[in-house]
Amino acid sequence: MPISIETRFAFHLAAPTDILLQFEAAAIPEQTILSSDTDLDPDERCARVSAQHDIGERIWIRAQGECTVAYRARVDIERQVSNLEELSALPAHQLPGEAVEYLFDSRYCPADDFQSFVDAQFGDTAGGARIARMRDWIGENFTYVPGVSDSGTGAAQSFIARQGICRDYAHVLIALARASAIPARYVACYAPGVDPPDFHAVAEVFLADPATPAGGTWQLVDPTGMADPSQTVKIGVGRDAADVSFLTSFGPSDFRTSSVSVSQE
Amino acid sequence: MPISIETRFAFHLAAPTDILLQFEAAAIPEQTILSSDTDLDPDERCARVSAQHDIGERIWIRAQGECTVAYRARVDIERQVSNLEELSALPAHQLPGEAVEYLFDSRYCPADDFQSFVDAQFGDTAGGARIARMRDWIGENFTYVPGVSDSGTGAAQSFIARQGICRDYAHVLIALARASAIPARYVACYAPGVDPPDFHAVAEVFLADPATPAGGTWQLVDPTGMADPSQTVKIGVGRDAADVSFLTSFGPSDFRTSSVSVSQE
Amino acid sequence: MPISIETRFAFHLAAPTDILLQFEAAAIPEQTILSSDTDLDPDERCARVSAQHDIGERIWIRAQGECTVAYRARVDIERQVSNLEELSALPAHQLPGEAVEYLFDSRYCPADDFQSFVDAQFGDTAGGARIARMRDWIGENFTYVPGVSDSGTGAAQSFIARQGICRDYAHVLIALARASAIPARYVACYAPGVDPPDFHAVAEVFLADPATPAGGTWQLVDPTGMADPSQTVKIGVGRDAADVSFLTSFGPSDFRTSSVSVSQE
Amino acid sequence: MPISIETRFAFHLAAPTDILLQFEAAAIPEQTILSSDTDLDPDERCARVSAQHDIGERIWIRAQGECTVAYRARVDIERQVSNLEELSALPAHQLPGEAVEYLFDSRYCPADDFQSFVDAQFGDTAGGARIARMRDWIGENFTYVPGVSDSGTGAAQSFIARQGICRDYAHVLIALARASAIPARYVACYAPGVDPPDFHAVAEVFLADPATPAGGTWQLVDPTGMADPSQTVKIGVGRDAADVSFLTSFGPSDFRTSSVSVSQE
Repeated sequence: MPISIETRFAFHLAAPTDILLQFEAAAIPEQTILSSDTDLDPDERCARVSAQHDIGERIWIRAQGECTVAYRARVDIERQVSNLEELSALPAHQLPGEAVEYLFDSRYCPADDFQSFVDAQFGDTAGGARIARMRDWIGENFTYVPGVSDSGTGAAQSFIARQGICRDYAHVLIALARASAIPARYVACYAPGVDPPDFHAVAEVFLADPATPAGGTWQLVDPTGMADPSQTVKIGVGRDAADVSFLTSFGPSDFRTSSVSVSQE
Repeated sequence: MPISIETRFAFHLAAPTDILLQFEAAAIPEQTILSSDTDLDPDERCARVSAQHDIGERIWIRAQGECTVAYRARVDIERQVSNLEELSALPAHQLPGEAVEYLFDSRYCPADDFQSFVDAQFGDTAGGARIARMRDWIGENFTYVPGVSDSGTGAAQSFIARQGICRDYAHVLIALARASAIPARYVACYAPGVDPPDFHAVAEVFLADPATPAGGTWQLVDPTGMADPSQTVKIGVGRDAADVSFLTSFGPSDFRTSSVSVSQE
Repeated sequence: MPISIETRFAFHLAAPTDILLQFEAAAIPEQTILSSDTDLDPDERCARVSAQHDIGERIWIRAQGECTVAYRARVDIERQVSNLEELSALPAHQLPGEAVEYLFDSRYCPADDFQSFVDAQFGDTAGGARIARMRDWIGENFTYVPGVSDSGTGAAQSFIARQGICRDYAHVLIALARASAIPARYVACYAPGVDPPDFHAVAEVFLADPATPAGGTWQLVDPTGMADPSQTVKIGVGRDAADVSFLTSFGPSDFRTSSVSVSQE
Repeated sequence: MPISIETRFAFHLAAPTDILLQFEAAAIPEQTILSSDTDLDPDERCARVSAQHDIGERIWIRAQGECTVAYRARVDIERQVSNLEELSALPAHQLPGEAVEYLFDSRYCPADDFQSFVDAQFGDTAGGARIARMRDWIGENFTYVPGVSDSGTGAAQSFIARQGICRDYAHVLIALARASAIPARYVACYAPGVDPPDFHAVAEVFLADPATPAGGTWQLVDPTGMADPSQTVKIGVGRDAADVSFLTSFGPSDFRTSSVSVSQE
């Protein structure tokens, strides 16, 4: 059963400004783009580049005045979803090189600061069971409140406030996982069931399945509990929200409106 | 004339702890490792992984008690060094995908916050000339003072204090460059002339040479003025110091001593 | 020539909430309240308390739903305004006890962080001449831009952004003055000439007049250059904006609208 | 049974520097100074001023080179200590003016950020019972670890790290109390039982005793659990540690050594 996505957003640029967009479902093995239609207006000096880890694409535009983006797609997901509780953490020295960078502090996830909390609160668990406990702890202690956070809010403030939106929930889980030496990254995505409907964000952690031969895999975890990993359409990944915003502006910009609709057919 | 490097450092771990080390000269086309000798004690569960962008290697160890690292190398550098003033910034839509991530905010370089300052202070220049102006502005306004900053200090605090060490100078230049939509990254390195002798850090910016056909290249810039790009031995690169520390500890650790000696033969 | 003030503002409280208001011209020797009219709706559990240093009054209300405040006053000012350049700083050991607390770091003015910048930038001046140089430096390097800062913005961010509103300008001057061991405080006020018309804020520094016998006095300084000290109506003083907001809410509140009109008759 | 105090500390000043000291037991009704001896070396340009709220004195010196402070005192305490659980919070509109400033955010206690956590975690209690719950919550969730925090650490970082020293424990309790609209301040003090022996810090909250006629009183609360309020010798009070450091330096200074010994006779 494919997922249908439809989104529109608009912004205004007083002067010619470079804008980086990333809002399309990524063409990756675990999800097949059945159809898609992207409409950018204006589309001057538009260029596509591969996004981080070759997951999805970024679109550059340089524009002025009123800009609108309309996107529509149908996506089929064939993601293998494991039971978190059964997964284990790889010993650090067995982590592949490309997972290591997801252990480090990033703009919105100063993981180092959380090491002592993580030891005290989750020290009696490990691997996937620890991630599951972190996810549940956030679910029990946080309240989903649109409007209390903004694009400058990081995991530290969210951890104190115990409230926020998907972005904030994901940042806190990523910080807690990294503080346990488990690689964790930020995933911008679409998912049915997100309420109110909007661009969504979840975390992804690198864990190993003892049942399979070697190495580890990235596993989606949504601390808000709204997105089912088997129905989550990935847009892109990064260290945190700084890397995979759907709109990054290199100069002043006025965001006007957006609408997002995601459903299972 | 090769560069000779000799370094030793020691640390103590009360409990078994995962430690990530990155201190060796990177084997990359622009520098040839003539000889090298790495001595880790203890070297339990030691593993090597490629570091970011395949520049250098990281070494994992898991150890307890007293640990010492001794490293000695001779490196020949054949780096093409351009005149910054003659380089130009690539239009954003011509940036290759792998350079784009170096435009984003990172842990110690919250570049967004510097956009208005950069416009006001450096708005009349562009490209390499702007980077040169930024480097000179830092050189004129900052004082090199070991001990006033620590591993938690970021570009914002350094910009206010107007003092710090190589790490702080590099962070400020990186933040200013990104705020101009010029990709910038952090380079851990060895260089003769660093005073007092120590691990060194500089910035690297992505610029284009109008004289050569296409694309851009990474150019070393040292805002402290101590390192000559043609004699700088790269260890590794990253978003900022969070990515390429010579020692990252996933648990409590006590740093004991270090000595670094770098000379041109 | 008296100053005429007229202001109205409204806010909404979803649940019963304690609100602290401070918006009236202070009755102090240097300014005479010729007439005033305050209308609070609702005015349940309303109580007045003296504000900091007995300058002005704070009003507590506990209310729910739509709240409106209307205030109208005529004020005559007889303030002795000195020429900053002719004033000197008191040696620290001659500062009166009640001025000392205005040397310390406060919520939005982490002055310690600015000590090295102040030494480097203003080290060749002292006392009132130094304050005048700081005021002029802010005036030359900052741009008055409503909307780029908010109630969480402090002197550090403003110093980096080089833009903001009266609140931000005052915070930066206060931080710079304290970093020079000159007591400095925040003054909420009304002044004609503020554009766009709004509640205003300036700094006040404690300096001595060599021509008069002993001790020091508080001197108004407006780094935005919009308010003339001889026409500035003080509402209250504090360490920084955290202390003298016109509305402090002890629970969620929605600010709706405000209008401020100030003129010289 | 009087409390005996003996302390010595030393610091070095490369250049002539203004230093503010506050380390003596305050002469206030609730504690009688039976004997005291203060020895400052050097004591140039030494001046005493009343400290905040007339609790204790601050000493200014201006010195260069090696400085030593030796202090010895015997203090008798007659403090009335209430059972926290039986005290109630005053309605905001009944708070005296001088308590109101202790509701506001200060340098190390950004209380606003804690409002949503306090509501969620302690919302079912009020007044002294709520303060007791906060104190116990800190006691259960925090670990006393000298060396993990420094003079720049605030309540936000401490809340995340769940570890620190007396200063950090006090900051967290103060932030939580203010977020509940209960005035809270920082008390520098001496107390027997502090381990390791050192200058100590606790919180003080403003609560009312329903058994006595009117108004409220300040009540000592030590979230570390080490200091008995009936044996705590107050040095001074302030918004947070920024106000009542035993040594505040207006320029670079090197702290050398300190020893503190406090015992009940």
